[in-house]
Amino acid sequence: MKDSNSEFQTALGENAKQVTDMLDALMPLTDTPEARVVDAMRYASLAGGKRVRPFLVTQSAALFGVDSTSALRAAAAVEMVHCYSLVHDDLPAMDNDDLRRGQPTCHIKFDEATAILAGDALLTKAFEVLAAPQTHSDARVRADLVLALAKAAGDHGMVGGQMMDLWAEQNDLNVAQITRLQRMKTGDLIAVSAEAGAILGKASEEARSALHAYAHDIGLAFQIADDLLDVEGDAALVGKATGKDADANKATFVSLLGVDKARQQAAMLSEQAAGHLEMFGEKADLLKELARFIVERRA
Amino acid sequence: MKDSNSEFQTALGENAKQVTDMLDALMPLTDTPEARVVDAMRYASLAGGKRVRPFLVTQSAALFGVDSTSALRAAAAVEMVHCYSLVHDDLPAMDNDDLRRGQPTCHIKFDEATAILAGDALLTKAFEVLAAPQTHSDARVRADLVLALAKAAGDHGMVGGQMMDLWAEQNDLNVAQITRLQRMKTGDLIAVSAEAGAILGKASEEARSALHAYAHDIGLAFQIADDLLDVEGDAALVGKATGKDADANKATFVSLLGVDKARQQAAMLSEQAAGHLEMFGEKADLLKELARFIVERRA
Repeated sequence: MKDSNSEFQTALGENAKQVTDMLDALMPLTDTPEARVVDAMRYASLAGGKRVRPFLVTQSAALFGVDSTSALRAAAAVEMVHCYSLVHDDLPAMDNDDLRRGQPTCHIKFDEATAILAGDALLTKAFEVLAAPQTHSDARVRADLVLALAKAAGDHGMVGGQMMDLWAEQNDLNVAQITRLQRMKTGDLIAVSAEAGAILGKASEEARSALHAYAHDIGLAFQIADDLLDVEGDAALVGKATGKDADANKATFVSLLGVDKARQQAAMLSEQAAGHLEMFGEKADLLKELARFIVERRA
Repeated sequence: MKDSNSEFQTALGENAKQVTDMLDALMPLTDTPEARVVDAMRYASLAGGKRVRPFLVTQSAALFGVDSTSALRAAAAVEMVHCYSLVHDDLPAMDNDDLRRGQPTCHIKFDEATAILAGDALLTKAFEVLAAPQTHSDARVRADLVLALAKAAGDHGMVGGQMMDLWAEQNDLNVAQITRLQRMKTGDLIAVSAEAGAILGKASEEARSALHAYAHDIGLAFQIADDLLDVEGDAALVGKATGKDADANKATFVSLLGVDKARQQAAMLSEQAAGHLEMFGEKADLLKELARFIVERRA
């Protein structure tokens, strides 16, 4: 158990480095007058983060023997979408956050206009990367990746979830509504990260469904863990303000279920997630470790 | 001349209606809690506009016998990107415009957060539409469309141009810099609109290059005409505030070249654009009319 955990931590750290290197290579510095937007894109995406979504892409891709350049390009594309969503969510008109991963948010470091544009450009770049021949020799794979990511990120996925989140500030949500909100806001992007490997590897429907079910469960577990951190976490460790949900009087899994039941629910989902991966045997051990990590993390 | 002009006006109007119908079908109303973002996407894209970019898509597609559903879906995707860019450009942190096509801008009608999200979702939807099998049976065509649109819209295209435009408020630009700025900010999306038909129709490199050259010229002519309208236009007709560039002390083609030389330049580009289409014969008559229309329009 101790060994598998340290193996997992090593793999997670190595993946984060490789993904950062890929992002760096995909968004080179320029000295043209529009360089500011590239600087902001890099600022918003190169520094830190555990790169959980990219890890899902590369680990699911590894199940099917996908080559590492393909997997890392797809991983970088998913991370670009994640980072764009953070930049826009942090804007004054949205969540109005000054701090992210312990650093000034993009619109504080640059300015609002640049942050809006950097988010737009990161989102656009994600699709450019996926559609480029370097990502996969089979154009159907590339088109499928674009389609799956766009669905997960758009008005019926992440953006819709963020809209619903703003709506939730004025409305009392029940557990079913919060589950749907979180499935859209964060779950769909997590799910498509795990599915990306199956798309890249032209996996069977069965394998793709198993990864989807796994990702669905860890997505929800991830969110419950996030809500728990917001209540119990240390702002210095978490790298952003905590207690914000309660201050905003927002319903969360924790406010609806209570701390103990929320923690049980997260643990149950984590175990259930790992169960979906039985068909892959030992090859999926790191993905199973990830399911554990997600509910046990302290930041 | 009179007849070809009225034929052109009819074709432009019919195309606008078909594109609006397609946009309507691609973004159906919902009654879920996130409906607000869909309402805002529809508000920002269904009302009006001459639909010049979609017209370029459908007319260039017609040169190669592309079926109308494919062409209209690609046309709608390009228009979604155009409309998202208007929504974000109008935001308080950017150009801070209250009026667009004679109507309240999206953030005035809804609110800033919703406008940011609606723009994000329109951009995302464009790629979803292009990547979907309904757009073309050949996945390579779909991936190529995504790649071309993403390049035209991203940090080396439209978004980079908008960044450069903000930079230009503090810097004096010469004609070469303005030309590059406008090529990125508006020209690249116009160029990809005309190229989309060639991609859909799997046209020869020669045909694609001819359409690119045509679109490059009309893109610049379009911008010069826009600058002329900003100086000479009637705000009621144009549907937005005029005289803004001069108020902002922004260099434009007109401020650098003077009105007469700018008008000559636009006319020359329009004629040159039509010349690039000789290889298509009469089939390209409407595209040639469009080149004329762009420099002669009064709004």
